[in-house]
Amino acid sequence: MAVDWARGGPDLLVALDRGAGPLGIQLQDQLRTAIRDRRLGAGERLPSTRRLADLLGVSRSTVVDAYEQLLAEGYVESTVGSGTRVAAIPGGLTLRAPGVASSPSRPIVADFEYGIPDLGSAPLTDWSWAVSEATRALPTAELGDADPAGSPHLREVVTAYHRRVRSGCAVAEDAVVVSGFRQGLAFTLATLAQHGIRRIALEDPGPREHDLIARRACLDPVPVPVDDGGLDVDRLHASGARAVLLTPAHQCPTGVALGPTRRRDLIAWADEVDGVILEDDYDAEFRYDRQPVGSLQGLNPGRVIALGSVSKTLTPAMRLGWVLAPPRFVPGIVEEQRLSSRGTPALDQEALALLMESGRYDRHLRRMREIYRARRDVLAVEVEHAFGPGRLHGLAAGCHALLRLPDGTSEHTVVTTAAAMGVRVNGLAHYRFPGMETEPRPPALVLGFGNVSESQIREGIRTLARSAGHGGSDRA
Amino acid sequence: MAVDWARGGPDLLVALDRGAGPLGIQLQDQLRTAIRDRRLGAGERLPSTRRLADLLGVSRSTVVDAYEQLLAEGYVESTVGSGTRVAAIPGGLTLRAPGVASSPSRPIVADFEYGIPDLGSAPLTDWSWAVSEATRALPTAELGDADPAGSPHLREVVTAYHRRVRSGCAVAEDAVVVSGFRQGLAFTLATLAQHGIRRIALEDPGPREHDLIARRACLDPVPVPVDDGGLDVDRLHASGARAVLLTPAHQCPTGVALGPTRRRDLIAWADEVDGVILEDDYDAEFRYDRQPVGSLQGLNPGRVIALGSVSKTLTPAMRLGWVLAPPRFVPGIVEEQRLSSRGTPALDQEALALLMESGRYDRHLRRMREIYRARRDVLAVEVEHAFGPGRLHGLAAGCHALLRLPDGTSEHTVVTTAAAMGVRVNGLAHYRFPGMETEPRPPALVLGFGNVSESQIREGIRTLARSAGHGGSDRA
Repeated sequence: MAVDWARGGPDLLVALDRGAGPLGIQLQDQLRTAIRDRRLGAGERLPSTRRLADLLGVSRSTVVDAYEQLLAEGYVESTVGSGTRVAAIPGGLTLRAPGVASSPSRPIVADFEYGIPDLGSAPLTDWSWAVSEATRALPTAELGDADPAGSPHLREVVTAYHRRVRSGCAVAEDAVVVSGFRQGLAFTLATLAQHGIRRIALEDPGPREHDLIARRACLDPVPVPVDDGGLDVDRLHASGARAVLLTPAHQCPTGVALGPTRRRDLIAWADEVDGVILEDDYDAEFRYDRQPVGSLQGLNPGRVIALGSVSKTLTPAMRLGWVLAPPRFVPGIVEEQRLSSRGTPALDQEALALLMESGRYDRHLRRMREIYRARRDVLAVEVEHAFGPGRLHGLAAGCHALLRLPDGTSEHTVVTTAAAMGVRVNGLAHYRFPGMETEPRPPALVLGFGNVSESQIREGIRTLARSAGHGGSDRA
Repeated sequence: MAVDWARGGPDLLVALDRGAGPLGIQLQDQLRTAIRDRRLGAGERLPSTRRLADLLGVSRSTVVDAYEQLLAEGYVESTVGSGTRVAAIPGGLTLRAPGVASSPSRPIVADFEYGIPDLGSAPLTDWSWAVSEATRALPTAELGDADPAGSPHLREVVTAYHRRVRSGCAVAEDAVVVSGFRQGLAFTLATLAQHGIRRIALEDPGPREHDLIARRACLDPVPVPVDDGGLDVDRLHASGARAVLLTPAHQCPTGVALGPTRRRDLIAWADEVDGVILEDDYDAEFRYDRQPVGSLQGLNPGRVIALGSVSKTLTPAMRLGWVLAPPRFVPGIVEEQRLSSRGTPALDQEALALLMESGRYDRHLRRMREIYRARRDVLAVEVEHAFGPGRLHGLAAGCHALLRLPDGTSEHTVVTTAAAMGVRVNGLAHYRFPGMETEPRPPALVLGFGNVSESQIREGIRTLARSAGHGGSDRA
């Protein structure tokens, strides 16, 4: 195994290629690899620099440099009178099996996954323009470690946007720029925990994994049911929580909007328990029948923390969002940002500010609203045809709706049958608070229609109808 | 206070401007603001839609729409026979004092702050090119919620870079893309805690706030001294830690490189305690006398987690970095990323991969190395002239050096005197492990020279010499 360097020469180990970059680097790399792989064992003496230079036909200084590099890095050691020897390196390379290529997946008829905007419509040309403008507009000093709260420019722009489009009343100082809803939530929950809040109520059904994220922030998550008027505020009262996270404009996943009385009851609850309302304002921009219902933050900015992002309006690939919080929570959220990641990319922040200021963001939203409206209309027609009237709920806003299946239908069976036919969809059970699945709810499917074309919707709904035993395939 | 709507008309509250956007929106906004500000009190009756429309000279449907919007949002309520009344909203607007503009700061002679690259040289044109290419190159499907481990493309590219430039041996599957060193560290420490590691050794002196970040991950940070050979591995043995975080290529802040024997001793320590070495590989690319010392990760990939970023090589404004970890830790780090923030921007990741693949990244590094080399040479000359020979240490690599002050000099006095003269610099004490300041070390200043021009270095060093009582100002 060990190469007898003194006699056999290094050709077994080192083969230099004169067309493949600097010879000294090649020499180092091959020696390093041989030592890592144990082809050169601890204690083995390397040939003298002169001898190896002769053997390889390179200058002696090339070999000297390579040996010195390996010496500095700890691969070899050198003793007066004893030459250069391979050092004893504990451990060594961890070999691993090469990754197995996944098998080709089945062709997808339609993917009704919740929460994905139309990726093909992402305004990439506008974004590229905005980044390019940002590289020119951003002062050099702002290219350093930035304010973890976010750029003053973007904080101004997003709060102005929230005031204008969402009827909020936050100012720039209330805003912390984050990498998206999830980061904003994690920072906010950690801050609430530091303010002595121990229990947070979550919607049931509601967005997934928020219970996990709450537990990571050392909060105790408890479920509160959602009915046709949104979150049940009486049950919230009974929960003992001092914080609640909800999706008031368009509940995820049921699609209901929190009613006006509930909105006021919620604010009253917060005042009564000295509590905090976390508003997940995730797709309110897309409302089809009229102007979106305003942000709860506007009703009581002292009790509401609004979390928004561009993941649904532009694309999740941008990773930018914001937290608008009462002043007492802002320093804590900023400190979380500072210690966790120092903030989001300054160039991207400036690009988003410019995109919003230039009117391109609004223009994109208007365009998307028409695209989603058309998909929604197709969805409504197809579902009524395949499943009968009155089955589709939560269509007033956003990019998903709830399809109530006939009583007695098994959600699980429909979901798995559809999957086998190339249609991806989730049942309502997928959104239940863990452990609450046993408390029965009528069977339903959550249909995200943001990233499916009109023809995919048509074919997908017919497939779902077949999966649910409704036939419908006879219709062309 | 309460406006008598029935008689006085709404002109006190609502003034529409026909040149300022949709009248219905103006009407809503003004009513909302009046309700928030309590100018319209709970229970007050709004005028009938017909009457208000007449008063304002707008169509009745404009007023109806506005009232319905306010109703949906909870600002007003409507009862049959009683018209529309302002709802009782608990709490209300939190008024706050406008921000006080900070006083103009003193002109800066030189800012020797540690760890900032030359911001004026950030390759913004290349970045703009790369983002634009990324918008074309990235498949539409990758614009959705991406793999929290990072894009496969960038994971390939950064590990190839680490193998080529840093003599590492990680493969794409070992890499997790993060938003920079700090996020990578937080995720890694959380993962180590889950693997049962309780105590982590940190360099003293060393980078700031790592003790805080360790505590946030529920680890117990302990200091281990750094001497002229780098981290004292004997003291590490005695610390009882099973993890260590260090800056082996160019120690922060002393500038020493971890010696070859220490490197092997460190690996042996890790094997002995079943431990983990966290390698903060933050500025090794800039080595002036020869090729950078290779990454420890290459010596023992089963025990070393290497953390890198582009914050020093490009700019902190990009917020991209990587963790290269043994396979057993990768899933934990990815899960941290997934639950904390879902990952870094897909477009930025693709842009960095393209920047590196295109050769523009290497070209930028070569250019910066020459700029930093020139600054370093000026620094060496100026310090020798002002403070005498042998006082500057740690200049072999990176963008900072240690200036040893004469014994008996007060670091604190020099730092504050210099600050009053417009020179920003930190003493070594700034980098001591909290609580260890009492264990004395010779006085020294940490001179970051990444973001100071040659003329600023000249003037700054002369100012420092004056601050330290060395005169030197008589030299022109």
